[in-house]
Amino acid sequence: MNGKFIVIEGLEGAGKSTAIACVMAYLQQHKLQPVTVREPGGTPLAEAIRDLVKQQWQEQLTAETELLLMYASRSQLVANVIKPALAQQQWVVADRHDLSSRAYQGGGRQLGDAKLQALKNLVLGDFAPDLTLLLDIDPQVGLQRARSRGDLDRIEQEHVSFFERTRQRYLEIAAADPSIKVIAAEQSIEQVQQQIIAVLDEYLVQLGLR
Amino acid sequence: MNGKFIVIEGLEGAGKSTAIACVMAYLQQHKLQPVTVREPGGTPLAEAIRDLVKQQWQEQLTAETELLLMYASRSQLVANVIKPALAQQQWVVADRHDLSSRAYQGGGRQLGDAKLQALKNLVLGDFAPDLTLLLDIDPQVGLQRARSRGDLDRIEQEHVSFFERTRQRYLEIAAADPSIKVIAAEQSIEQVQQQIIAVLDEYLVQLGLR
Repeated sequence: MNGKFIVIEGLEGAGKSTAIACVMAYLQQHKLQPVTVREPGGTPLAEAIRDLVKQQWQEQLTAETELLLMYASRSQLVANVIKPALAQQQWVVADRHDLSSRAYQGGGRQLGDAKLQALKNLVLGDFAPDLTLLLDIDPQVGLQRARSRGDLDRIEQEHVSFFERTRQRYLEIAAADPSIKVIAAEQSIEQVQQQIIAVLDEYLVQLGLR
Repeated sequence: MNGKFIVIEGLEGAGKSTAIACVMAYLQQHKLQPVTVREPGGTPLAEAIRDLVKQQWQEQLTAETELLLMYASRSQLVANVIKPALAQQQWVVADRHDLSSRAYQGGGRQLGDAKLQALKNLVLGDFAPDLTLLLDIDPQVGLQRARSRGDLDRIEQEHVSFFERTRQRYLEIAAADPSIKVIAAEQSIEQVQQQIIAVLDEYLVQLGLR
């Protein structure tokens, strides 16, 4: 059996890093050989693309360019890291994946979901995560947490309405896709971790691994 | 009246730079305010993307990633340079544009024209050159010329069969699109320039500018 592809999604400050650590520890306890990747990035070229996307430019970086760079990074990561790892029975835990583009560029930048789905089909075909944990948080709360960590990058400096549109798109897509589990991320770390573990327990039961 | 968008296309060593100098001189003589751009590149971000595409990587740079990076560069150049220039009645002369992707990634890399057209529609909509000069040359001849100039970049190091597929796709597309004029580029510089000027004369007559 191939490994499984688990994605952690959510707005800035939602607690993705803590969630990833929790998922990794859980999978290790269950001897499932997990590896982590992040998007954009994850290969030398994809990390170079990440730098281009995150930095400030004197010129307007158009929504379409941002989207194409995200997919260029993703295409590279999927082909060179994620698919080979899954084929070797490893479990891959990703900090963001395609759902981020649908929420941020599709919702936040208002490119529309039809455009996003067409591009996804072109680049990824039917490749998709097996399980997604969406850490849902009020953008005001998340941004306050993110700001307390230090400098914000080009995208993190957007107006709160951008993140409200992004959150809304996240939740709309999750409502239509049973492989996306919404985690209420404004609770305490312990409560968030309990929810994550409950989702993973249920998933392993489904797979007959528990 | 908006300016016009003229694109120079062709394989490595086909003589694009000389052709662009010829077109620029012609347009200046006719007081048409020409500016030149090149792809990939043409804005600070697009030039940074160009560097990523041209350099050698330790990892496999997938055909899809290459294609997405070309479109990211193009999206940025069209929005920030080409469209604003055309709106200010300037004529834009481009060293490569969308047709290069259709020929190199679609033909050379065998991604297929349907995928290329879908991506073009997503990114550029109905934006297209007014006139394209395709400098047609046998890849063996062109590559020999290019090699005599010095180091070849990542794409220029492809096997000759890659360039033969690219040339074939160029010619197939040109045969179906009357805005693409094929110039026989293996002739002497003087003969090539005569062909270019004949095409430009005819185009200005069409527009009522001669």
